Amino acid sequence: MTSERSGERRGLVIVNTGNGKGKTTAALGVLLRSWGQGLKICMLQFIKTKTSNYGENRAARKLGIEMVPLGAGFTWLSKDIEHDKALAREGWELAKTRLSDAAYDIVILDELTYLLAYGWLPVEEVLAALRDRPPGMHVVITGRNAPQELVDDADLVTEMREVKHPYRQGIRAQRGLEF
Amino acid sequence: MTSERSGERRGLVIVNTGNGKGKTTAALGVLLRSWGQGLKICMLQFIKTKTSNYGENRAARKLGIEMVPLGAGFTWLSKDIEHDKALAREGWELAKTRLSDAAYDIVILDELTYLLAYGWLPVEEVLAALRDRPPGMHVVITGRNAPQELVDDADLVTEMREVKHPYRQGIRAQRGLEF
Repeated sequence: MTSERSGERRGLVIVNTGNGKGKTTAALGVLLRSWGQGLKICMLQFIKTKTSNYGENRAARKLGIEMVPLGAGFTWLSKDIEHDKALAREGWELAKTRLSDAAYDIVILDELTYLLAYGWLPVEEVLAALRDRPPGMHVVITGRNAPQELVDDADLVTEMREVKHPYRQGIRAQRGLEF
Repeated sequence: MTSERSGERRGLVIVNTGNGKGKTTAALGVLLRSWGQGLKICMLQFIKTKTSNYGENRAARKLGIEMVPLGAGFTWLSKDIEHDKALAREGWELAKTRLSDAAYDIVILDELTYLLAYGWLPVEEVLAALRDRPPGMHVVITGRNAPQELVDDADLVTEMREVKHPYRQGIRAQRGLEF
């Protein structure tokens, strides 16, 4: 809310974790703000299926923002773990090209933490790519169960904590709010 | 992430509170998703100054989304409390017209909780407007210190909890991330 009077940009690693809502949604808010500021941004979605057509995918297409669904859906529903692991690796290779490209102001790695939690991607490999990125680049990583090593290396970490959740009462996810 | 197969829309009251980042930013994510879904949405910003030109204000103008900064800036910096109170009341009157207008799918009341916390607006008046709104309308309310009565009446409440914050280390707010 303060303005960037200093002019200097320090690239931050931001982690949105916790069991509550708003992790991906807040990353989408960053996307909107950045687009409004004319910054170059991309969002790689590690869990969303390649055929995703949620509100954010539609919006990104209309705005010309690079948003790439990389995943095979909810992996815990998948019948083929090896396929999911290969997809995860493929997604991470794309992420590395973005993380090393100084043309990007902000790179969002949505739901990356699940790949770490499942052991499909070594956390050291992610930390190395973050350390080696161009200095002004912001990176936003979302997902539950962010590993402690990532939290230790991050600049800004927020836990979205569920206080009250309507889907416990049988209410379905709502268009515009969650997809 | 599940789809809205039931077809029925149940309007939810959503509260993003807590001392961490992401309360307003997640509301902006809802705004982006809703726009992508072709829904009618507005965002009233109770604290942002009327001359605000943050990334979200620029984006909203470009997208034709109604985003109205109503406030006098950070009220705790204001020299004229009566002026701020009058602005708050004026903003709330506009909010009531939106909350009673069935044309809106989603109404975002950004940083409304501060008006309640300062005692400028009775919480009962807000709860009454929420109860009387069109049944399918979603309302998103953000800000620290959401009063317990609001939490009790809300459907979905998330606490954004600060785990680690770089501004404690003297790093300024960054363009695209926070404004």
